[in-house]
Amino acid sequence: MVERVSDARMDALFEKVKNWGRWGDDDERGTLNLLTPEHTARAARNVVGRTVNCGRVLPVAPSVENPVPAQHMMILAGDARHGTGVPGAEACIDYIGLAFHGLGVSHLDALCHVFHEGVMYNGRPASDVMSTGATRNSVMAMAGGVASRGVLLDIPRTRGVDWLEPGDGVTPDDLDAACEAQGVQVGPGDILLVSTGRDARREAEGPWDPGHGLAGLDGECVPWLAERDIAMLGCDGANDIMPPNTNRWPLPIHVCCLVAMGVHLLDNLDLSGLAAVCEEERRWEFLFTVSPLQIQGGTGSPVNPVAVV
Amino acid sequence: MVERVSDARMDALFEKVKNWGRWGDDDERGTLNLLTPEHTARAARNVVGRTVNCGRVLPVAPSVENPVPAQHMMILAGDARHGTGVPGAEACIDYIGLAFHGLGVSHLDALCHVFHEGVMYNGRPASDVMSTGATRNSVMAMAGGVASRGVLLDIPRTRGVDWLEPGDGVTPDDLDAACEAQGVQVGPGDILLVSTGRDARREAEGPWDPGHGLAGLDGECVPWLAERDIAMLGCDGANDIMPPNTNRWPLPIHVCCLVAMGVHLLDNLDLSGLAAVCEEERRWEFLFTVSPLQIQGGTGSPVNPVAVV
Amino acid sequence: MVERVSDARMDALFEKVKNWGRWGDDDERGTLNLLTPEHTARAARNVVGRTVNCGRVLPVAPSVENPVPAQHMMILAGDARHGTGVPGAEACIDYIGLAFHGLGVSHLDALCHVFHEGVMYNGRPASDVMSTGATRNSVMAMAGGVASRGVLLDIPRTRGVDWLEPGDGVTPDDLDAACEAQGVQVGPGDILLVSTGRDARREAEGPWDPGHGLAGLDGECVPWLAERDIAMLGCDGANDIMPPNTNRWPLPIHVCCLVAMGVHLLDNLDLSGLAAVCEEERRWEFLFTVSPLQIQGGTGSPVNPVAVV
Amino acid sequence: MVERVSDARMDALFEKVKNWGRWGDDDERGTLNLLTPEHTARAARNVVGRTVNCGRVLPVAPSVENPVPAQHMMILAGDARHGTGVPGAEACIDYIGLAFHGLGVSHLDALCHVFHEGVMYNGRPASDVMSTGATRNSVMAMAGGVASRGVLLDIPRTRGVDWLEPGDGVTPDDLDAACEAQGVQVGPGDILLVSTGRDARREAEGPWDPGHGLAGLDGECVPWLAERDIAMLGCDGANDIMPPNTNRWPLPIHVCCLVAMGVHLLDNLDLSGLAAVCEEERRWEFLFTVSPLQIQGGTGSPVNPVAVV
Repeated sequence: MVERVSDARMDALFEKVKNWGRWGDDDERGTLNLLTPEHTARAARNVVGRTVNCGRVLPVAPSVENPVPAQHMMILAGDARHGTGVPGAEACIDYIGLAFHGLGVSHLDALCHVFHEGVMYNGRPASDVMSTGATRNSVMAMAGGVASRGVLLDIPRTRGVDWLEPGDGVTPDDLDAACEAQGVQVGPGDILLVSTGRDARREAEGPWDPGHGLAGLDGECVPWLAERDIAMLGCDGANDIMPPNTNRWPLPIHVCCLVAMGVHLLDNLDLSGLAAVCEEERRWEFLFTVSPLQIQGGTGSPVNPVAVV
Repeated sequence: MVERVSDARMDALFEKVKNWGRWGDDDERGTLNLLTPEHTARAARNVVGRTVNCGRVLPVAPSVENPVPAQHMMILAGDARHGTGVPGAEACIDYIGLAFHGLGVSHLDALCHVFHEGVMYNGRPASDVMSTGATRNSVMAMAGGVASRGVLLDIPRTRGVDWLEPGDGVTPDDLDAACEAQGVQVGPGDILLVSTGRDARREAEGPWDPGHGLAGLDGECVPWLAERDIAMLGCDGANDIMPPNTNRWPLPIHVCCLVAMGVHLLDNLDLSGLAAVCEEERRWEFLFTVSPLQIQGGTGSPVNPVAVV
Repeated sequence: MVERVSDARMDALFEKVKNWGRWGDDDERGTLNLLTPEHTARAARNVVGRTVNCGRVLPVAPSVENPVPAQHMMILAGDARHGTGVPGAEACIDYIGLAFHGLGVSHLDALCHVFHEGVMYNGRPASDVMSTGATRNSVMAMAGGVASRGVLLDIPRTRGVDWLEPGDGVTPDDLDAACEAQGVQVGPGDILLVSTGRDARREAEGPWDPGHGLAGLDGECVPWLAERDIAMLGCDGANDIMPPNTNRWPLPIHVCCLVAMGVHLLDNLDLSGLAAVCEEERRWEFLFTVSPLQIQGGTGSPVNPVAVV
Repeated sequence: MVERVSDARMDALFEKVKNWGRWGDDDERGTLNLLTPEHTARAARNVVGRTVNCGRVLPVAPSVENPVPAQHMMILAGDARHGTGVPGAEACIDYIGLAFHGLGVSHLDALCHVFHEGVMYNGRPASDVMSTGATRNSVMAMAGGVASRGVLLDIPRTRGVDWLEPGDGVTPDDLDAACEAQGVQVGPGDILLVSTGRDARREAEGPWDPGHGLAGLDGECVPWLAERDIAMLGCDGANDIMPPNTNRWPLPIHVCCLVAMGVHLLDNLDLSGLAAVCEEERRWEFLFTVSPLQIQGGTGSPVNPVAVV
């Protein structure tokens, strides 16, 4: 059973970890400023070379997990393959469309995705996100793509369970215990991935509505993340506990990471394959690459990140 | 001026480089079978750690370069940020939609994208690509993402020009000359990137309709690629010369790579940043990662590949 | 409780009512050929002038009634009203997108929408409907719009109930009884609308999944419809009973109307307003107009038909 | 050559024709309040019964006329007709999507579509149109559909030309001359359609970019329209002259109709068929019906209006 975090406590944590102005008043990249070629090169140096993706298959049919699925439609299928406009050429063409911030889609949250009392990262007003897109803090801050040291903390493994139940919370003690059990440390510029075992549970017990329950990080983890100066955070759930264990304070991890710290988030990854490879290699650090579609004014992007273990 | 390649010559090349059955009759991965962890680890070992993306900004307005632009629309902007359904939460949400096989979109071609006389890679009929998606050879063969050694061959640099003119062709001699000038070799499992200087020309001379003219690889390069057993091929144009320098033989690079060899293609990359970094580092090899959206039955994916030089 | 209709019975009815060739082998309009200006003028002559629409509000949020809702997104809202491209002009612009053949969308079925054993109206093969659209029997046969005499048969009124329960069937006796009770006859060129009281039930008992149960016309009504030579048929449900009261014979009304007779269908109308006005005026005939979007190769169109009572 | 209308003159006209408050401060229907059953019944009484549509075919390919075409994609074509989810049923299903306020799409403008100095009909602020849709003055004010007396004024016929050239303006004198030549009067509750011969010119001279030139109504027509208390206005062009013959005063017809008077507009109709039928019948009045899709918060709707002459 997760403890409730009081609104006053979250207010205090939010103020404590705020990075506004740390990289200048014009900064839109937040903790991506912590990335260095040296750190990336170090991460690359020791890889075994096994490539593992961390994204989900795009959901294209409505289901309990994905009430608003992605669209995938053929423009030219095999029956119309001559219709390309290039004489003699035979090709098939299709279309995809999606509102990617769904709980069944692996995606990146840009710093303009979330507000706290009408304000986003670096103190910008919500009105900077217009009906035509974000004028500040858009996903274009990530346009160059990211490759850095990634660390997976496998919480079910440390706790000795198959998965965390929906609604359960990962605490700072869980993070410390996982670091110790896995012999790994988290530091500046790292991309931290936290596995709650969502996909193991799904495989065993079937799909469920993630809006009704997902394990995630307790708000008390916020200072732990801030002290380590991570560059990005990812999770197999929504990063936040669903439903929240706060009172009126919304989505503590989203708000403290995206708004206060300027930490981009990766939501709804599938970390089961990566956890298995890490276990086999007895090695929970790797080169992690994530690269959004370059959507001007976008609030994020669907992604399929790749770890090279 | 590019020479014309006869239809009979292309017919012969197609037969010569065919990999059908090489990895079994059920294979859908083609030359991705050549990827090995060892090769990837070797590529990672020597990187300087500089991260460079190779994708274009998604075109969202109609233009001469992109007659059918991507859609980007806000579902919730700042004025409606409370409409998330999560009480107290404030967020913005958007939608993207696109037919990604456009000449202005950086994208991956799956092996089902192109046919030759009604047949695709490993001898499968066009009717396997239905109005509901491809039942074989879809982009899901790439779902795991790819990280391997990448090599950039910078043709304008070797030729001593700023760019290749639209309609010009890269020959096997060009490829050899670039390898020699850059001190690099291309071999099994490599991802070959060929720069024609498209973006340098665009910057100097402005946008043009890529369908009316793009530099690309001459059909005579096909055996060169096959002998080296590359895993993937990418270009800042359409890989093929536009308009084609064949007679009735359509898109020789697309057809020989996707259909005959099973080589996935990356079209319309932006290689200008990568070329600049390679020049600075005097090093034209790197760790290259590309990861499609996991679209079941899809013919490809928009991508924003990342090179770690 | 509805009786089951045997597959053999449906096979016989299908053959009996077939209009293939009746208006020539090239015909794509089916019973729209029965429309005459005289009939329309007669219908118009006696109207009171009350205008009533028969379409539903487009569902834009996922719900039990509409698992795949329509998309409605603003391109320019008030915050971006100056972005029109016309200097000085201030405007808002939006986008709609939908798969209109849903059970929550009022729509017209073109004659290419349904097949019987791979064949559609006038004996054309399913392969005439390609991934790029229908090459025959598309909604363009209706492009000109229809205005004709409409007749509403209000089955709950005749039966003395508030509504028909989901899964219940309207029989030929019901149709005859309604004609007699309402003092109306149905004949050549008429557009027949059959109310099952779906919206009265919805208002009283709340939304339900229409795929799990909708009242509709029993397959035995097919000869009744054919004898009267109606031009179109509409219903507040799916015209067919859901789930079907046949065994392996699919959607008898859809198949016999669209495929055998060439009768265009209107699905999921909201007839509650029209029924109320008809009751007030003691008059169940009117001028009925329906006009699809002109979608080349389309299988139908969302519509909002208008009755002038 | 059209004369220029001064900004001061337009300012004065705007104030002069303003209907704000005329039907109460809560009104969202504007001159639709002028519709009466009696007027509709009178219009219906004398029809010959010929049905003519006034909408264009949806443009689904990019062209000079339609830079952002509509989307039309098959979800199930003939090759996948068994995929309906209803056992045994065989059907085809498609999708349409469009930003309907294009110059190639016949559409209805809701009263929230246009602003004048940040304000729309009945004095409401632009901020009432949010990224989630219009909270006031949306197309839902038209949800019930409209059937009323329609009058076509055929300006090329009166002038004795085949068409008006792009950029030309229809003046109050033109309107008077057409009324006299056709023996028709325009009055309260009427739907006025003004033909400029756009489609005759298109047929003779081919497509052109309508943004670069369309004949339309001169701003001086505004008092003429207001004095007659028309219910709606439609045109085969954009109603306004393109490019405008004002200085800084944007789109005088759009602004004075939608914002000041509360007159809904029909843009880009195809009136060539209607003009031909009217000529044949020597009768330029008819029953006119137009019915939008019921889009909550929508700024308009694609339409295919039907005239019963």
